[in-house]
Amino acid sequence: MNDIYEMMSTLRAVRRLLPDPIPDDVMDRVLQAAAWAPTGGNMQPWRVIVVTSSERKQALADIYKPAWYRYAKGYDKRIEQLPADEAEKARRNRVAGDYLADHLHEAPTILMFVADPQMMAITDAKLDRVSMVGGGSVYTAVQNAMLAARTEGLGCVLTTLHCLAEQEVKEALEIPEGWATLAMIPLGYPIGSGHGPITRQSVTALAFDDAFGVTWS
Amino acid sequence: MNDIYEMMSTLRAVRRLLPDPIPDDVMDRVLQAAAWAPTGGNMQPWRVIVVTSSERKQALADIYKPAWYRYAKGYDKRIEQLPADEAEKARRNRVAGDYLADHLHEAPTILMFVADPQMMAITDAKLDRVSMVGGGSVYTAVQNAMLAARTEGLGCVLTTLHCLAEQEVKEALEIPEGWATLAMIPLGYPIGSGHGPITRQSVTALAFDDAFGVTWS
Repeated sequence: MNDIYEMMSTLRAVRRLLPDPIPDDVMDRVLQAAAWAPTGGNMQPWRVIVVTSSERKQALADIYKPAWYRYAKGYDKRIEQLPADEAEKARRNRVAGDYLADHLHEAPTILMFVADPQMMAITDAKLDRVSMVGGGSVYTAVQNAMLAARTEGLGCVLTTLHCLAEQEVKEALEIPEGWATLAMIPLGYPIGSGHGPITRQSVTALAFDDAFGVTWS
Repeated sequence: MNDIYEMMSTLRAVRRLLPDPIPDDVMDRVLQAAAWAPTGGNMQPWRVIVVTSSERKQALADIYKPAWYRYAKGYDKRIEQLPADEAEKARRNRVAGDYLADHLHEAPTILMFVADPQMMAITDAKLDRVSMVGGGSVYTAVQNAMLAARTEGLGCVLTTLHCLAEQEVKEALEIPEGWATLAMIPLGYPIGSGHGPITRQSVTALAFDDAFGVTWS
């Protein structure tokens, strides 16, 4: 028995992965977990590419690495504005992010979640703000996959920086016209402990009672 | 112990809910599960409004009901094109959807997940396709909340049709300018069994081996 609350409360972003391959039965359970997720109209408009060849992993790493170091410049500026304890934590995340960018091709597996917006009813597509609802039929599966990875003792982290060069990613993985890339998840057994305590805001800070801004208690 | 795979594999869309209130400790665990979810840069750019007053639930029902019946017209047309067994299932979903639309105000609780795109780095915002990545920092929390609801014996279903009248929803729940509404989740103890087997595509249909279109086996 794998307690669901224990898994949720220890699902850390793990960016340091051993190169050891993931057994097929373990990968099967991770993919099955994703397949169980609810999607709009039960359309399951997503697919996941399980990338394991050196060549394609290298191609993804070659796309991700410059995107990360460009992004990290802005991240460094944000760090300077943080209080000391938060800045220290953010600096450790920066180092872990650098490690991931430098070693992405060494992960045994990289999951790439893709989706076809034509298979979705995206109810906020025409609003005067950035659309986000399409993600509702994909990140439910992504979260299930990450929780299953945690359950199986695998480390993982949800990344989206590859979207900054989506066309190159699509060429590298032969993703057809019309499909979008939503999540890139390096997956492998952790170097070191991997899972453990997470830092999150309290329920009191995140939940409201009956109307926005009213503290839930 | 609540086995994570058992919860994932029996998380059905439950649209028929008893009006019985949800105890505070149960709701706390559902909200805590949401709070544990990973988000981009650990920014947790979402909030959840726990709607329980008759007045505000009625306001949401008044928005949702006409949106559902407009949407259902297109759904009926899709049903006509399905093979007999799928059409039968779709017709049952239509009836359950009608039930939800007619009884939404009777649910003891309605969760409304909102998010501030200003707190996110949405990497696909400038691509020549509908953006979906913003959902990656919200639906992870939504999925955790629904899995926790299942674990606690509650029924729920993820709906997004309220976005068709987002401005009215924002007025009803006093959601400030700049915040987006991403998921409305009626929550309550199920009428009847609630949870149980789900119909999903197989892993073989959803996962690819190293490149798009190559069956994973």
